Amino acid sequence: MTVTTQFTQQSPMTAAKASATAVATKEWSIKASPVVGRSKNKIRSVIAGLDLSQTKSDKPLINLGLGDPTVFGLHDPPKVAIEAMQDALIGGNANGYVPGTGLKEACQAVADYHKRWDGVDYAAEDVTLTHGTSHALDMCFSVMASPEHNVLIPRPGFPAYGTLLGNVGCEVREYEVLADREWECDLEAMEQQIDENTAFILITNPSNPCGNNMTPQHLQDIVNIAERHRVPIIADEIYGHMHWSEWPFVPLASLAKSAPVLTLSGLSKRFLLPGWRFGWIALHDSLNVAGAIRNGLHAWGNRFMGPNTLVQKSLGRILSETPDSWYDEVTRKLEYNAQLAYSNLSIIPGLYCTFPTAAMYLLLGVDIKHFPEFPSDVEFCSALVQEQNLFCIPGESFSIANHMRLVLAAPSNVLQDSCERLREFCAKHYVA
Amino acid sequence: MTVTTQFTQQSPMTAAKASATAVATKEWSIKASPVVGRSKNKIRSVIAGLDLSQTKSDKPLINLGLGDPTVFGLHDPPKVAIEAMQDALIGGNANGYVPGTGLKEACQAVADYHKRWDGVDYAAEDVTLTHGTSHALDMCFSVMASPEHNVLIPRPGFPAYGTLLGNVGCEVREYEVLADREWECDLEAMEQQIDENTAFILITNPSNPCGNNMTPQHLQDIVNIAERHRVPIIADEIYGHMHWSEWPFVPLASLAKSAPVLTLSGLSKRFLLPGWRFGWIALHDSLNVAGAIRNGLHAWGNRFMGPNTLVQKSLGRILSETPDSWYDEVTRKLEYNAQLAYSNLSIIPGLYCTFPTAAMYLLLGVDIKHFPEFPSDVEFCSALVQEQNLFCIPGESFSIANHMRLVLAAPSNVLQDSCERLREFCAKHYVA
Repeated sequence: MTVTTQFTQQSPMTAAKASATAVATKEWSIKASPVVGRSKNKIRSVIAGLDLSQTKSDKPLINLGLGDPTVFGLHDPPKVAIEAMQDALIGGNANGYVPGTGLKEACQAVADYHKRWDGVDYAAEDVTLTHGTSHALDMCFSVMASPEHNVLIPRPGFPAYGTLLGNVGCEVREYEVLADREWECDLEAMEQQIDENTAFILITNPSNPCGNNMTPQHLQDIVNIAERHRVPIIADEIYGHMHWSEWPFVPLASLAKSAPVLTLSGLSKRFLLPGWRFGWIALHDSLNVAGAIRNGLHAWGNRFMGPNTLVQKSLGRILSETPDSWYDEVTRKLEYNAQLAYSNLSIIPGLYCTFPTAAMYLLLGVDIKHFPEFPSDVEFCSALVQEQNLFCIPGESFSIANHMRLVLAAPSNVLQDSCERLREFCAKHYVA
Repeated sequence: MTVTTQFTQQSPMTAAKASATAVATKEWSIKASPVVGRSKNKIRSVIAGLDLSQTKSDKPLINLGLGDPTVFGLHDPPKVAIEAMQDALIGGNANGYVPGTGLKEACQAVADYHKRWDGVDYAAEDVTLTHGTSHALDMCFSVMASPEHNVLIPRPGFPAYGTLLGNVGCEVREYEVLADREWECDLEAMEQQIDENTAFILITNPSNPCGNNMTPQHLQDIVNIAERHRVPIIADEIYGHMHWSEWPFVPLASLAKSAPVLTLSGLSKRFLLPGWRFGWIALHDSLNVAGAIRNGLHAWGNRFMGPNTLVQKSLGRILSETPDSWYDEVTRKLEYNAQLAYSNLSIIPGLYCTFPTAAMYLLLGVDIKHFPEFPSDVEFCSALVQEQNLFCIPGESFSIANHMRLVLAAPSNVLQDSCERLREFCAKHYVA
């Protein structure tokens, strides 16, 4: 870096200056806060361990790694979203600050949306708008937990939970979601880990990375545990209503009689607009016992202002005018892909999986003892890129061994091709 | 809140249930994290102390409180900003995730902008994109400071500094900027407060709330202090280049020979687009001693993703195609207003001020001994609303007694009216 303004007289680097620089370098000693080390994103560190440098394959790259529904152009976003944003842009009155937790009309739009889709009543004041759902998680974690607390999160689960909690400094306790029970939670283990310092139980439903949609009874069992122990629930439902199995998606807040439930959602997944960075928190608190959380979210929302005003002004139309047929088209495509992937992958020797019923992922088991060349899923995925130019995220990123996550939001022919490459790869490396 | 889905069988509130509710209420005991209490926004708590409930005036409200340049429609935003966003919307390829610290082309656009305007060379990798400049501050604070550190911030200053630092838990040391020296920093006091645990010196230039633009020599003196003590500088330059005085705006990074400087800016003020929530951090580190900060910002940018992708895709055009004439039009209006406000207010008995040379504020002194009805600026401002329906933020919000901040980004006739109301108000309450 060089500086060229009139206010400094800098000469080109000379030997004398280089020497002075060396001396000064020794004296500077800048360290980052220790929280940086606790806030690394696990997906990134695992991917950094993969050898993606040069594939030996002449096939084109298929990247089934990123949980971004727009990568392959699976489906256009709702037309009304684009139109409403254009109107907000041209209207010229959506460029200013709005309240830190959100414009009232946008918060009301979220309340109306959850009333319609979840059957839960909220007021505009129950809603906090955020820069995407990860920011919503960060706000909930910061407000609800402190170093004296412990919190319960799922394993396998979304790696950002751990990343974001690293800044809070609370104890993180993981409860298992079980591959052999269609990714239901280990309720007994969950309950045993709760004590008087448990700040919240976090539930992801539908699940990333598991792609399952929990039954009403199972969700009720979770709520019962929370209510018995007086622990609030964070319901990460960013994949809410993205399901296609015979049983419906049940919003966790709709089951809670006493436990405060913070439902997290946004435009990133169901609305196929992750780049718009728009999420929210809806607080359901039927006994009015979560005033401290409510006030905390309000304070936190005012630390730095909420999401883009253009989107806030457009939100009412996006949430109320997106036609049902549009939602159906998207989930039909995902269901078709889920069936295609499941039917092709579940018959490959050495692989196993549960049929995904929601979200946009298939979490594929690798029976690693049949692939003795590979010590773990990381090496398995690394070789898959090398030989087949197919990229999937190893289970280790989600804290589950011997698995890999495939994104289903790709065109069917791309998924078909991916299954074929996996079949070929496994056939080559499988040892009975 | 009531729940109406098919999955619960809830009856209307009965006496029995109400009683059960009362019992359960006692048992729930949810507390927020102690950081919530340390993260209150001071502007909001001071405003909450004002009695704004009912004015006795029949004049229309003039709100010179909010630091939002769009409130009065001072000037339209750059045409190219609207056009570029429309193109991004229609183009359909700006809806997905981009890297957490920003799309490379957007980071490069920031680098090019600062090269042109500040005369400082940056690479795209030196830039981190953020959800507005307050988020940029939050990132810098989180990455650079920890409870073992102290940090230096200006008094009076932007209240969000304290709000955001509340979450870090470091010691906050304030250095004074001096009303009788045209808001220059008290350099001696600044230097005395530095020790081996000082994580950074924060400089706001041009200043909110003071409306001054520091001289090159004064800025060089600050840089010399930082370099002598090996302390990095955070240069909050969100009002950079919004000046009209005879001396130019000098970017702090352009003066640094060894100290790392993190320059914070964005679209909120100079570009009149605060609602778009778009800011950035540009790291100038000529000796390459701030690798820990660089890595920390990278980790922090990946905790939750950066700002709206539509704006990221539009940024190159906004920063490079906004015509110079547009910038000039905006600053000419602000200069006119600064002169109008200064010439009218500085002659009112009991008030005093420095001519504002930059940003969009005038920090008006109130010689409170001449207004014995009012114990402080808070009561003064409260009565001003009651009697004249004119709202300004009391100096207490910015940690300075006996002052009030007026926003200059209003039409001239509104400012003229505001000055007249202040004249009338002071005439009524002034005691010689």
